[in-house]
Amino acid sequence: MTEFAYRLKSLGTETAFAVSQDAAEFAAQGNKVYPFHLGDLDLPTPPNIMEAAVKALRDGKTGYNPAAGIPQLRDRLAEVAGAERKISLGQDNVVIQPGGKPVISKFIQALMNPGDGVLYPNPGYPIYESQINYHGGQALPYGYIPTAEGFKIDRGQVEDRIDSQTRLFIYNNYQNPIGAESDSGEMEWVAELAQKNKLWVLSDEAYFKIQYSGKPESIASLPGMQERTVILYTFSKTYAMTGWRLGAAIGPADLMKVFAKLNVNDESCTNHFIQHGGIEALTGDQSGAEDLITELKLRRDILAQYLNEIDGISCYIPASTFYLFPEVTELYQQMEAQSYEDFRSSILRETGVSFCTREHFGTPITGEDRKYIRFAYSGIPVPEIKAGMERLKEFWGSLKSVATV
Amino acid sequence: MTEFAYRLKSLGTETAFAVSQDAAEFAAQGNKVYPFHLGDLDLPTPPNIMEAAVKALRDGKTGYNPAAGIPQLRDRLAEVAGAERKISLGQDNVVIQPGGKPVISKFIQALMNPGDGVLYPNPGYPIYESQINYHGGQALPYGYIPTAEGFKIDRGQVEDRIDSQTRLFIYNNYQNPIGAESDSGEMEWVAELAQKNKLWVLSDEAYFKIQYSGKPESIASLPGMQERTVILYTFSKTYAMTGWRLGAAIGPADLMKVFAKLNVNDESCTNHFIQHGGIEALTGDQSGAEDLITELKLRRDILAQYLNEIDGISCYIPASTFYLFPEVTELYQQMEAQSYEDFRSSILRETGVSFCTREHFGTPITGEDRKYIRFAYSGIPVPEIKAGMERLKEFWGSLKSVATV
Repeated sequence: MTEFAYRLKSLGTETAFAVSQDAAEFAAQGNKVYPFHLGDLDLPTPPNIMEAAVKALRDGKTGYNPAAGIPQLRDRLAEVAGAERKISLGQDNVVIQPGGKPVISKFIQALMNPGDGVLYPNPGYPIYESQINYHGGQALPYGYIPTAEGFKIDRGQVEDRIDSQTRLFIYNNYQNPIGAESDSGEMEWVAELAQKNKLWVLSDEAYFKIQYSGKPESIASLPGMQERTVILYTFSKTYAMTGWRLGAAIGPADLMKVFAKLNVNDESCTNHFIQHGGIEALTGDQSGAEDLITELKLRRDILAQYLNEIDGISCYIPASTFYLFPEVTELYQQMEAQSYEDFRSSILRETGVSFCTREHFGTPITGEDRKYIRFAYSGIPVPEIKAGMERLKEFWGSLKSVATV
Repeated sequence: MTEFAYRLKSLGTETAFAVSQDAAEFAAQGNKVYPFHLGDLDLPTPPNIMEAAVKALRDGKTGYNPAAGIPQLRDRLAEVAGAERKISLGQDNVVIQPGGKPVISKFIQALMNPGDGVLYPNPGYPIYESQINYHGGQALPYGYIPTAEGFKIDRGQVEDRIDSQTRLFIYNNYQNPIGAESDSGEMEWVAELAQKNKLWVLSDEAYFKIQYSGKPESIASLPGMQERTVILYTFSKTYAMTGWRLGAAIGPADLMKVFAKLNVNDESCTNHFIQHGGIEALTGDQSGAEDLITELKLRRDILAQYLNEIDGISCYIPASTFYLFPEVTELYQQMEAQSYEDFRSSILRETGVSFCTREHFGTPITGEDRKYIRFAYSGIPVPEIKAGMERLKEFWGSLKSVATV
């Protein structure tokens, strides 16, 4: 048979799925697995949201709806997301999508020409790099520097890489996988950089509402930024709706028309009745979302305490996202791991503790010598966190004692 | 602000949405509108399907699911779609999509290089042409010839256009907008052409189960075709699920892996709980789908009878789809219409009857002199069909009498 198209050679993927599969296979052999690899939630969608979708379904909201989404949801999202970000938004600034992810591809398709440079976080969500390469851009990764206040963007690296062909900046605050949080200085620096270099910004705000203390900030609210920013909005994390596939692009009206035209081409429209669930999520009882935060905070605190008690592990505790990104360089060396994959696989097989490594979030940048792994606490309840951490502590303790002997 | 990306200049759209908008605005001014322009259904999804989705939602099927879809749905669809088409399919041949439409873009992305020729029907679903142009292909339209047995592919036109750069053939049987149905001779001719010229075939089978007599046939069941065919499968029409956004690509396993990888990049996965509705649609009580056919057949017969009673209109009655595509050349001339759009808009304003024209389904091919319009009967109940047709008959009668005087 004939070959497939050449463009596929540049298409990346999420290698983290292989971790899920490995964990599932290990469990299927009768082993206990502690799933810290999942960026999904094991908590149910709040019932008021479910019932609003059920009502809409039974009321016959089963036909096509506009490519940009139903007007009521666009209106409510403009109001709610605008108020949270202290910006003024209208229906024309919002285009509903089947999830947050389609915003990444559409942002790149709409704004990047082949050869244009795109700055993107690494470690970061792997689809940024995949989509940049797939559409013929220059992928320009920027890293983070660990500080006493958590991970901070490596500004020098950004400044070294930016040139006259750089056109887009992908900014993921609050950040997956490392839990980086911009302080106001960093966010202002990104805004100045974007304006000085006439960059469009994709502000991936998937974790905007996953906040354990303080209030979230959006770069779109800084002066001069709203007209050059597309917000990736999603219901997935805030309301435990990952499997619903409901999100939106929020940005300048003329650009949002382009996004809607891409919707017409790619998927016609987003599921009709689930958009009514989205309206309830935004405007109805928020106690489900609050309970989610309470539960996640508890998990974070317990997990962080365990991790920081283990010798050779150091872990900053971010106030956002549902990830911890501990440094494990010392243990990696002690285990004489041949690779990140060897490290991950050995620990899974020794302890049942399953996690992703730094490598699942992009190719390590040259000169990067410290080793990191990602623990997600969104898909594992407290007793399992404790049991898994006990296993890990024990295993790592045994390594230590061998090393000491 | 900076310009958007150049590639957007090649992106088309569905101009039929402008008809919906025009009709809605005309109705908002207090006018009665008879909606024959909608390719949507005004009938509800069968309740057993709705309740299966509701149960799955309440059972917590709200998290991520595999990019290729849940295994149970892929298995059932392989069985059911395979049996209907007399081909052997397994889970690996099926990749669930958020609707049928994503299959078009993914087929082109996966198999067409820039510069490759793609044969596609015109009149036809406008997204074929849009996606070919958007991804840098050579769009090669082929038309249809009216015969006493309905519209038949203009084989001479296909043979004139095909050359060594032609790589894909888009085949929409049963066809929107013209209701063309291949007889076995035509389908075999397409299959031979594809094999002789090593073409991949996209078999858009959105209307496969919308049959008022006889049994549907798929080109994938012809010898040598399964390995070069991707079936666009959708739940939309068969089960009145247009707004659910549930479909699938069905094709060779190695190619389906590519489709799944595109899913990872574009939308992560399809909504989780609605896939359980899909399982019920395939395996549960079929009376809802049967009632839909009964209702649509009644509408077709009444609409066709009216249309064929009007002088100057001639209309073949296909046994599939929910469209009639009457020729209106004589009336077009009598009205001294300046354009298709003038013709459509004048009739909407004179009678309230709203329809799409041939031009909403591609640029007329050079030499095309007859005029056609499309009546959809999926979105309008029988009493409205009758009332609308009475208005049209009256209006056209008055034109005639003026012409006679």
